[in-house]
Amino acid sequence: MERLLTHIKSPKDLKKLSLDELPKLAQELREFIIDIVSTKEGHLGASLGVVELTIALHYVFNTPKDKLIWDVGHQAYGHKILTGRKEIFETNRQLGGISGFPKRSESEYDDFGTGHSSTAISAILGMAMVSKLKGEFSKQHIAVVGDASIASGMAFEGLNHLGVTNINALIVLNDNAIGIDPSVGALKKYLTNVKVGTAKDENIFECLNLNYSGPIDGHDIKALVAELERLKHVDGPKLLHIITTKGKGLKQAEENQVVYHAPGKFDKITGERLKKTGQVQPPKYQDVFGHTIVELAKKNEKIVGITPAMPSGSSLKFMMDQMPDRAFDVGIAEQHAVTLAAGMATQGLVPFCNIYSTFLQRAYDQVIHDVALQKLPVVFCLDRAGLVGQDGPTHHGVFDMAFLRCVPNLIIFAPMNEMELRNILYTAQLGLDRPIAIRYPRGRGTTIDWRNAVESIKIGTSRCLKEGSEIAVLTIGHIGNDVEKLIKKLDASKKIGHYDMRFVKPLDKNTLRTIFSQYKHIITVEDGTKTGGFGSAILEFANEEGISKPVKIFGVPDQFVEQGTIPETHKLAGIDFDTIHSYIQSTLNQCV
Amino acid sequence: MERLLTHIKSPKDLKKLSLDELPKLAQELREFIIDIVSTKEGHLGASLGVVELTIALHYVFNTPKDKLIWDVGHQAYGHKILTGRKEIFETNRQLGGISGFPKRSESEYDDFGTGHSSTAISAILGMAMVSKLKGEFSKQHIAVVGDASIASGMAFEGLNHLGVTNINALIVLNDNAIGIDPSVGALKKYLTNVKVGTAKDENIFECLNLNYSGPIDGHDIKALVAELERLKHVDGPKLLHIITTKGKGLKQAEENQVVYHAPGKFDKITGERLKKTGQVQPPKYQDVFGHTIVELAKKNEKIVGITPAMPSGSSLKFMMDQMPDRAFDVGIAEQHAVTLAAGMATQGLVPFCNIYSTFLQRAYDQVIHDVALQKLPVVFCLDRAGLVGQDGPTHHGVFDMAFLRCVPNLIIFAPMNEMELRNILYTAQLGLDRPIAIRYPRGRGTTIDWRNAVESIKIGTSRCLKEGSEIAVLTIGHIGNDVEKLIKKLDASKKIGHYDMRFVKPLDKNTLRTIFSQYKHIITVEDGTKTGGFGSAILEFANEEGISKPVKIFGVPDQFVEQGTIPETHKLAGIDFDTIHSYIQSTLNQCV
Repeated sequence: MERLLTHIKSPKDLKKLSLDELPKLAQELREFIIDIVSTKEGHLGASLGVVELTIALHYVFNTPKDKLIWDVGHQAYGHKILTGRKEIFETNRQLGGISGFPKRSESEYDDFGTGHSSTAISAILGMAMVSKLKGEFSKQHIAVVGDASIASGMAFEGLNHLGVTNINALIVLNDNAIGIDPSVGALKKYLTNVKVGTAKDENIFECLNLNYSGPIDGHDIKALVAELERLKHVDGPKLLHIITTKGKGLKQAEENQVVYHAPGKFDKITGERLKKTGQVQPPKYQDVFGHTIVELAKKNEKIVGITPAMPSGSSLKFMMDQMPDRAFDVGIAEQHAVTLAAGMATQGLVPFCNIYSTFLQRAYDQVIHDVALQKLPVVFCLDRAGLVGQDGPTHHGVFDMAFLRCVPNLIIFAPMNEMELRNILYTAQLGLDRPIAIRYPRGRGTTIDWRNAVESIKIGTSRCLKEGSEIAVLTIGHIGNDVEKLIKKLDASKKIGHYDMRFVKPLDKNTLRTIFSQYKHIITVEDGTKTGGFGSAILEFANEEGISKPVKIFGVPDQFVEQGTIPETHKLAGIDFDTIHSYIQSTLNQCV
Repeated sequence: MERLLTHIKSPKDLKKLSLDELPKLAQELREFIIDIVSTKEGHLGASLGVVELTIALHYVFNTPKDKLIWDVGHQAYGHKILTGRKEIFETNRQLGGISGFPKRSESEYDDFGTGHSSTAISAILGMAMVSKLKGEFSKQHIAVVGDASIASGMAFEGLNHLGVTNINALIVLNDNAIGIDPSVGALKKYLTNVKVGTAKDENIFECLNLNYSGPIDGHDIKALVAELERLKHVDGPKLLHIITTKGKGLKQAEENQVVYHAPGKFDKITGERLKKTGQVQPPKYQDVFGHTIVELAKKNEKIVGITPAMPSGSSLKFMMDQMPDRAFDVGIAEQHAVTLAAGMATQGLVPFCNIYSTFLQRAYDQVIHDVALQKLPVVFCLDRAGLVGQDGPTHHGVFDMAFLRCVPNLIIFAPMNEMELRNILYTAQLGLDRPIAIRYPRGRGTTIDWRNAVESIKIGTSRCLKEGSEIAVLTIGHIGNDVEKLIKKLDASKKIGHYDMRFVKPLDKNTLRTIFSQYKHIITVEDGTKTGGFGSAILEFANEEGISKPVKIFGVPDQFVEQGTIPETHKLAGIDFDTIHSYIQSTLNQCV
């Protein structure tokens, strides 16, 4: 039997199908997603959960004239496939391929780029307000928002505004009780009460002046179409509550929703994940954090752990499992997470607040106003710092050194390897007199036998990895390993010095003074933005000291970096092994 | 009759009073606040509104053992006066005096420093979680939060977490229907329904699993004491809804709540504000913005205006009054404001999003992820940039150049005077291909006759105000006027050049090349942080160009700057007229 999906080049084709054909299309779309993601990897569960919703939305509404925003965007694979990107869907998340998230420059159907959560309500409201100003009263505006995402503060701000407008917007609350990890919080509890029918009369969304309908089964495509058709003719702001199952249609994905959020390669029939074979690998930095915090917390009862909705991604779940009273998932609430930590720190605890570098942007004011200004010893662990690879420009953690460096009282550290990470975690829990941010990258470290006996690090000290005479390479964090390798390769044992600076702030000024006086050439290497970053700190130091010596700065240039593997994105940014290697080689040649 | 207040040195003394004496104390406390604020200036209305609550809280609870946080902190004057700071209250907001906000280092009764809104729930929850961990089950934890503040996203994140804890915390919702300007949004509307009794059965806070009580009259001190006593014995998270009148007890302040938020000097008997006499002054920058946006919007229908809860402070109210369909107060919701603007920009409008520099820290991620990454031409107008004076370290807008400079696609501009501000506003609405941030200070410009015929500014160009031969002074923004004056005073017409660089990004590289080649001494002056700021941008430029020339950077050093008048804070930061003057003079002497 011929596949319906074959003929769907755009939503126009979709509308030619009868209502009775839609369940079959849903089945095919689901299979298509599973087919591709099983071999090409990507985010699976979220898109499987909204297959019926995706079809129903494009069936009922007149996209792209009507505006449609997918909050966070993990769930937009079906949307991409139905809107002309079926043939190139296999390039998903690859260098030069389509983005794993909605992206305005990619398609007229992607009305708003997403990636970070909880932006869709604000954005759709902005669009709807413009339609009203322009007198386009028949235009529809829809945002699909998950239950984990709608509990974030920014979404509430959007709802609070939406409820006092008379604009034509529909929020579809996709309630599957899970984000990447299971949803938490009072709103989640409330939504559960609504689902099981124990909530009282007035609905929380009605309290906010929204026209509420639901909950309805988000996998019943006919019911969805009927309800969306009805709501199309209801004026004003409205919210449709639908219940879905993340991973729907793949048994293993339904049963193990956290793992199948982004399962890597798997068998598309059995759902079994393909085991990576081969040699033993160094640990992920996140796991070094996760295991070490448990190890330290067993001895130091002042330690508590906080994650905003990333227990798995940060590996704080190890502590949450073993010490549930002392490790907390607060949901997608970075602002709250930071100030909660500040509150705890006032009472003498040492909170380890683990936030992805890119998401700390959400809590920047809290870092300044609630933590640094009060000099509270919160320990920020910034996972996914630097270029993160396939998640692309929405998720690269490249700004942290620049935006944190200007914050008074803050220590900024980047470990070059697992032992350094363990040592700084150990140091931080001994009791600093001020906050510290520890940034480390996505992915694995360098050392299989990484469980060193921890020792403390003196704040503001660097490590000299190799003395030299002509060229000093100053590195910060994990990227220093590339430099270590290329120096070995260049085999210029006497000419090139290598310093792992460790602290972006405070700088090791004594060592820097020596370096600037002893070496002819100074090179800095970082995996963050050049503008205002680590290299810039070195320039400020030199200028302050009255030293006039040029510094070659390797860092991410002043542009957003596209997606690709991490090595590919390093190449795009000009901070890859080959680029640095050839620069140093040519500098060496000058020294001869 | 002797005053009760005379004998209140701490809450311990307060507890000696009988319940019947408390209304008299309230009257005295109110008079005391009016007395001082009428001559020393400060925030009036908020503190007058919570006089009874302040007394009741310290009467019922065992501060400082019990924890008490005043959200935002404008309303904490009574608290300060009752907790040992009566004698020094007249130093409020002055250099070396007590802070206008709660401040941990100032008193053991100030459990958490506030200033920016909506932090109190997170902070008190952190403290309460620690009490639970420590087994201190009798300890009480109270946060007082206004209705404008509780509608901000961060507060919702706190409530969402609080509702699923079993910790002992009381949120007092101080509902006066106003922040600085009247409250807005669906929650405000809902709270009004609650007050007039038209809300349905279930309460929105009960939906979030909080034990709700109220609304009660927040000026009925006996009712407050009784209810707080009752709640002290109710376990778990709870919210008490009280109704108060901002400015209570001073007729004019009750009737004109926006003006009497911080009325300046006034007659303590009549309440009449004292008119400032003397010569005609240049306009406030905020008014130049406010009037110019109206002027431009009349001609360009693409212009819309957005403010997060600062219609008066930003002067966007001029546009809101004249064009209510096109200018919006979205409440204390900076994150939402920015992404709302982004949504509007996708549909071809030119949104002017006016946010105080310090509050843009709340929307940093949205600037990066929703605006800059998508290259949407949102116009950010950052009022109160630089050192803001008496509001002190919570409110100084000194980080913006550093944290914005690393954001790709963003233009950053600072006008030196009213005409420059008008011209850049005019330029921005012509239709840029990317976002722009325009930062300008608190206070007045330079020019009484400021309504120039607007003209466009070429992006990335500077102004040479004076040619020179030896010393080039590069300034950014309003502080350039100080430099202009001191150059005149030094009368070294031929030696000192002065350049108003205007754009922090993109830099005027052509002019910079000329400057670096023609002058021996380069000096930069800014009213933002030196770390990563404008001067640092100049260093990066020079280094990139291979120029080795020291640059003297005047900017805010790497520390939080205390309160004072703006000139005093400039002196604290070492960027005052005298300091720069004497440096340039001594450099001049070297040139001889």
